[in-house]
Amino acid sequence: MASLSCSPDDLAPLINHTAAANYLCNQFDSISRKLNDTTYAVDNTYLLFSAYLVFAMQLGFAMLCAGSVRAKNTMNIMLTNVLDAAAGGLSYYLFGFAFAFGGPSNGFIGRHFFGLRDYPIPTGDYSFFLYQWAFAIAAAGITSGSIAERTQFVAYLIYSSFLTGFVYPIVSHWFWSADGWASATRSDGKVLFGSGVIDFAGSGVVHMVGGIAGLWGALIEGPRIGRFDRTGRSVALRGHSASLVVLGSFLLWFGWYGFNPGSFFTIAKGYGGSGYYGQWSAIGRTAVTTTLAGSTAALTTLFSKRLLVGHWNVTDVCNGLLGGFAAITSGCAVVEPWAAIVCGFVAAWVLIGLNKLATKVEYDDPLEAAQLHGGCGAWGVLFTGLFAKREYVEEIYGIGRPCGALMGGGGKLVAAQVIQIVVVCGWVTATMAPLFYGLHKMNLLRISRDDETAGMDLTRHGGFAYAYHDDEDDSSRGVGLMMRKIEPASASPSPPAAPQV
Amino acid sequence: MASLSCSPDDLAPLINHTAAANYLCNQFDSISRKLNDTTYAVDNTYLLFSAYLVFAMQLGFAMLCAGSVRAKNTMNIMLTNVLDAAAGGLSYYLFGFAFAFGGPSNGFIGRHFFGLRDYPIPTGDYSFFLYQWAFAIAAAGITSGSIAERTQFVAYLIYSSFLTGFVYPIVSHWFWSADGWASATRSDGKVLFGSGVIDFAGSGVVHMVGGIAGLWGALIEGPRIGRFDRTGRSVALRGHSASLVVLGSFLLWFGWYGFNPGSFFTIAKGYGGSGYYGQWSAIGRTAVTTTLAGSTAALTTLFSKRLLVGHWNVTDVCNGLLGGFAAITSGCAVVEPWAAIVCGFVAAWVLIGLNKLATKVEYDDPLEAAQLHGGCGAWGVLFTGLFAKREYVEEIYGIGRPCGALMGGGGKLVAAQVIQIVVVCGWVTATMAPLFYGLHKMNLLRISRDDETAGMDLTRHGGFAYAYHDDEDDSSRGVGLMMRKIEPASASPSPPAAPQV
Amino acid sequence: MASLSCSPDDLAPLINHTAAANYLCNQFDSISRKLNDTTYAVDNTYLLFSAYLVFAMQLGFAMLCAGSVRAKNTMNIMLTNVLDAAAGGLSYYLFGFAFAFGGPSNGFIGRHFFGLRDYPIPTGDYSFFLYQWAFAIAAAGITSGSIAERTQFVAYLIYSSFLTGFVYPIVSHWFWSADGWASATRSDGKVLFGSGVIDFAGSGVVHMVGGIAGLWGALIEGPRIGRFDRTGRSVALRGHSASLVVLGSFLLWFGWYGFNPGSFFTIAKGYGGSGYYGQWSAIGRTAVTTTLAGSTAALTTLFSKRLLVGHWNVTDVCNGLLGGFAAITSGCAVVEPWAAIVCGFVAAWVLIGLNKLATKVEYDDPLEAAQLHGGCGAWGVLFTGLFAKREYVEEIYGIGRPCGALMGGGGKLVAAQVIQIVVVCGWVTATMAPLFYGLHKMNLLRISRDDETAGMDLTRHGGFAYAYHDDEDDSSRGVGLMMRKIEPASASPSPPAAPQV
Repeated sequence: MASLSCSPDDLAPLINHTAAANYLCNQFDSISRKLNDTTYAVDNTYLLFSAYLVFAMQLGFAMLCAGSVRAKNTMNIMLTNVLDAAAGGLSYYLFGFAFAFGGPSNGFIGRHFFGLRDYPIPTGDYSFFLYQWAFAIAAAGITSGSIAERTQFVAYLIYSSFLTGFVYPIVSHWFWSADGWASATRSDGKVLFGSGVIDFAGSGVVHMVGGIAGLWGALIEGPRIGRFDRTGRSVALRGHSASLVVLGSFLLWFGWYGFNPGSFFTIAKGYGGSGYYGQWSAIGRTAVTTTLAGSTAALTTLFSKRLLVGHWNVTDVCNGLLGGFAAITSGCAVVEPWAAIVCGFVAAWVLIGLNKLATKVEYDDPLEAAQLHGGCGAWGVLFTGLFAKREYVEEIYGIGRPCGALMGGGGKLVAAQVIQIVVVCGWVTATMAPLFYGLHKMNLLRISRDDETAGMDLTRHGGFAYAYHDDEDDSSRGVGLMMRKIEPASASPSPPAAPQV
Repeated sequence: MASLSCSPDDLAPLINHTAAANYLCNQFDSISRKLNDTTYAVDNTYLLFSAYLVFAMQLGFAMLCAGSVRAKNTMNIMLTNVLDAAAGGLSYYLFGFAFAFGGPSNGFIGRHFFGLRDYPIPTGDYSFFLYQWAFAIAAAGITSGSIAERTQFVAYLIYSSFLTGFVYPIVSHWFWSADGWASATRSDGKVLFGSGVIDFAGSGVVHMVGGIAGLWGALIEGPRIGRFDRTGRSVALRGHSASLVVLGSFLLWFGWYGFNPGSFFTIAKGYGGSGYYGQWSAIGRTAVTTTLAGSTAALTTLFSKRLLVGHWNVTDVCNGLLGGFAAITSGCAVVEPWAAIVCGFVAAWVLIGLNKLATKVEYDDPLEAAQLHGGCGAWGVLFTGLFAKREYVEEIYGIGRPCGALMGGGGKLVAAQVIQIVVVCGWVTATMAPLFYGLHKMNLLRISRDDETAGMDLTRHGGFAYAYHDDEDDSSRGVGLMMRKIEPASASPSPPAAPQV
Repeated sequence: MASLSCSPDDLAPLINHTAAANYLCNQFDSISRKLNDTTYAVDNTYLLFSAYLVFAMQLGFAMLCAGSVRAKNTMNIMLTNVLDAAAGGLSYYLFGFAFAFGGPSNGFIGRHFFGLRDYPIPTGDYSFFLYQWAFAIAAAGITSGSIAERTQFVAYLIYSSFLTGFVYPIVSHWFWSADGWASATRSDGKVLFGSGVIDFAGSGVVHMVGGIAGLWGALIEGPRIGRFDRTGRSVALRGHSASLVVLGSFLLWFGWYGFNPGSFFTIAKGYGGSGYYGQWSAIGRTAVTTTLAGSTAALTTLFSKRLLVGHWNVTDVCNGLLGGFAAITSGCAVVEPWAAIVCGFVAAWVLIGLNKLATKVEYDDPLEAAQLHGGCGAWGVLFTGLFAKREYVEEIYGIGRPCGALMGGGGKLVAAQVIQIVVVCGWVTATMAPLFYGLHKMNLLRISRDDETAGMDLTRHGGFAYAYHDDEDDSSRGVGLMMRKIEPASASPSPPAAPQV
């Protein structure tokens, strides 16, 4: 392709006129500058609005989590979701982003841009920081689902900071930065197995990290009171609002269009050829694969649950949907739409199987987060190693990179993907399990039996989340209603002095 | 306008130098390529984010529907909304999109791009598929509102697939594809009445289709139990949550900015002239007409309901608002802002009138979907035939196209619009009425009387959607709470054994 | 920079050939035109989607307000939020926009573009109108929070029209239009104190206006019944749904990314220099400062409330978050990220302090709107005068403009900022206080004692917002359930005739 920069020295002898050459080249230069500005504007618009969509997932998580827990713990879980975003904002600004993308650095951890010093740079703008922050807070949100309804708030503050500020940034450095030891976009080209790990939008980097962290937390503190009866039989502790679950799931779906297609970072990049096919097409295709994987997983879950349980269950369908999304997140950009259907179909069964297993071993995860994000995420990483298409891999990662094992690519990519699964499991286990265990040993992890029975909202968060029925008599009498304990009717048969609400 | 492609053969003799000509033309070519890339990037960014907004309408529908039904059927209606999106994703990918836009084809049905084979093409990218998918699922969502609270889930699965996969794609082929017999954008220029139907964003194609399908479903299965008493008096079966209704309505408003302005598909297109006025302006104007029509309809509803009923009613205002949107959707791009106010004002009265009529004939539509989307949609199609402005029609559809009858355009456009109303009514009736009738005859349409009284959530969907008050005693005793029947207090005066929740 | 427009007259003598010059200049011209189109497309895409985000804040307000009031007034407050948008759409189209931006005009009020006549213009398109409309409706939304739960609906209709249609547009004319007497972007360059007021996205123009209007309304009608007992002790009248509060707060956060970064209006503008740093970077940085200010304020509130009250309270954290956003809104574009942390930290304490003060003087503001938007907004205006960075101010407002007092800029900017605080307070007080007082004197402001106790939804809006438990017996008997009064259990101990729900 011809250079965009006109050189008067080259042009002058051709047309035998220096002034003419200067005149023409000035024209080209100013056009070129304006075109560069426009390109930056388009790419940043694209990345910023994608970041806003990813941020909307935090709202989705909050609503999904709120609806999935019992009413008495709603304030607690929503507070953790707000704090994931807020505390994550500060810690990712101060050091998380630096650990993750502070290159040039070694392959393990970044070391520049603490507090955004000396940033932006030619290869990264504030929009990139914002986008990565929105990813970082998602990981912590996943974990909070696993340990919901029984974890001390102070334990939450500790593990959340550690996960968002250190554990997650390191993983994203390894797989996504220009220096990461397993990154497929290493700037020196020395990629793992000649391939590098393809975890395009983070089935491994985000979902497995959050899910495995949650697994350890939930394992160490054990199931909620009443979740398994004395004979080990599973007792569903249903969430308090299916409407919030559906609201949250749809918001996550909405936001996933920022999460997956947004991970291209730029859109104004041609792929040569006939001209109409470029990165914008790959981005659109990524949105399509994402849609198809989630849709297939939702339908698979619908019919299999109907067969297995006998209900058409909307909350199960929502979880299946999210499992499909978590799985396709790794390979979304490099697989064909038909492969996304395979991905979603298997993801639904992975989730069903892991949920059966969880029940069997009496593992309690109120949001199924470890199964969903950990399990389906791991399947997604593997899936990419099997189904990545050569053409798409080369467009994104460069000519000659190996593609999926089932697409004629041999074993290099799938080997790299397996390495990612192992390494992510190992790293998160090595960091988070000791942390949770230490908190447990210091009695900082789990709330007291009384608190758990009464609900954390009443005992720790200033009151119950809902007050649908006003008690006009009380309020007109001016009696303080700061907290309103919900008494089950069975406890006292509605004496006038203790109004049942 | 001068061509963007520089020709060395043309230029060389002019400057008497082949090398100079090549040099200069190479510069122009590379700029031209980069500019093309940028234009594709801008247009795809615009269309993708518009598609995401349209998708958000599905969430809006889910919340609107959930809030408008009684609590006992919330799980049911939300599941249908999730499935509209998920099943629609698969079926539209496999064949719906092919039926709709698989040109070149005949005027009735498309025949390419099954499973997105040989797609994208120069005139359509993945973003266009995604955008059209988001439209397709909206139609089915409308219908599910009409038949809410009394329809078997299996009937829903059948009609929804048929509507999204066949009935709707055919209609969109007729009016929107380059081959459609009534399309205003026919590639061969042989448009109906020299005009073609102008249904810019689908008052007819989407809203009437969904509304009329719902009309037949609701007519055939009849009103919900208790909706009309023995003397035929109307009894309001109020929805269970006005908050969800408002949330859903606002989300629909938000998403409508993708639905209407997004239907331009591209934004980077100048209209010549002074330069600052182009397709971006027409798009902005479309957002403005949309806003004004909805706003006017909402205000008209507010004051007329206050006069007619005596309340300031927020759910009625929300329905009025949506009626205004459904009406302006057809002409949003080709009318002046002041005309949008006329559109919204009439739409509000169309809805009020049809609701009166529905009550009189004992027609029960829990979401008023047939009245709102069918009735206001039909008004919108007609409105375009009356108020389309010459200048705007020519900018979008080409010089010489007839404009609205009241804007000096004669009767051609309005005739085409009437044809659309008739044809859409006919086609949807011919396909959906027999389907619903067949399901009815096979006892697959309506749920049993007991199920309807108890609510579908308890009997079919695994439990009630809400559990605001935990019953700690039960759960600590380890008793399974898989389903929790809500007993009205009057049935049994709170014995300890049957805790009131 | 070289001109983009090629002149054949200039070029022809240089290359000694008129035809060649024409040929080349035609090429340049057509590229230049296409590039202009693309730039308009990018900027309008950016502004339109930013406007949609700002619109989403209206939904956020609706949910935040709904959750913050008692269940019995939910329909009322949501209706006001829907009407802010709808009535604001009409009034801003008819005259509000003209008052605000109808230049050329005097410094006090605009006078063109009534009903969008003769619009768009080269310096403003429909997208700008839409964006400004979304801002205008936000101001009225703030005020409705202050006077919630006790204001007549007709009073609401009157003050809301007056505020959106006149009071607010005037203020935005002063500080934001090209003619405003205090605007930093005055087209004639005669800016106040050689600086002009820097209220980039409207801590003063939007938040203070809404907050101070609310202050007068709430002061004049007095506290809700039961808010302070006979001894003056404060009694929390808790909102009915913390889930809606969190949903609303997150939606506001989401929308604020349209509010603050969107206030640049265009994104495709280079700042010269190395090329990669341009308006897109400043926009990204604005999103970052917004995030950091809100996050810091949320965390500060979390820990200080824990110390002061003893709870980890999510609704307080949400209010702190919003206080941080309201404060950074003024300076978001011209301060460093670290300064945003200072801004948020102080904003949290401003809110805590003003809430203490409000309790002391028995001022009742159900949403803390006057304290939050008025108080934190004023702090934000001042903050900009202290911390604005020279480089950023010059990039946006032009070389030589004074920067913040603590950044070496002297007192000019801070003086202008103080003027804004004084003038906004004065103008809103002079217009809104007499209005509220007049309504009060005519008995149009406050609802009756009975209505307030029963709740406005039952008495004025057609019924209670929620009906979670269906009363199958009644509905199957066909008894009208148009309104369902919620009886507190204490009033009558559950006789069968009065079912407790």
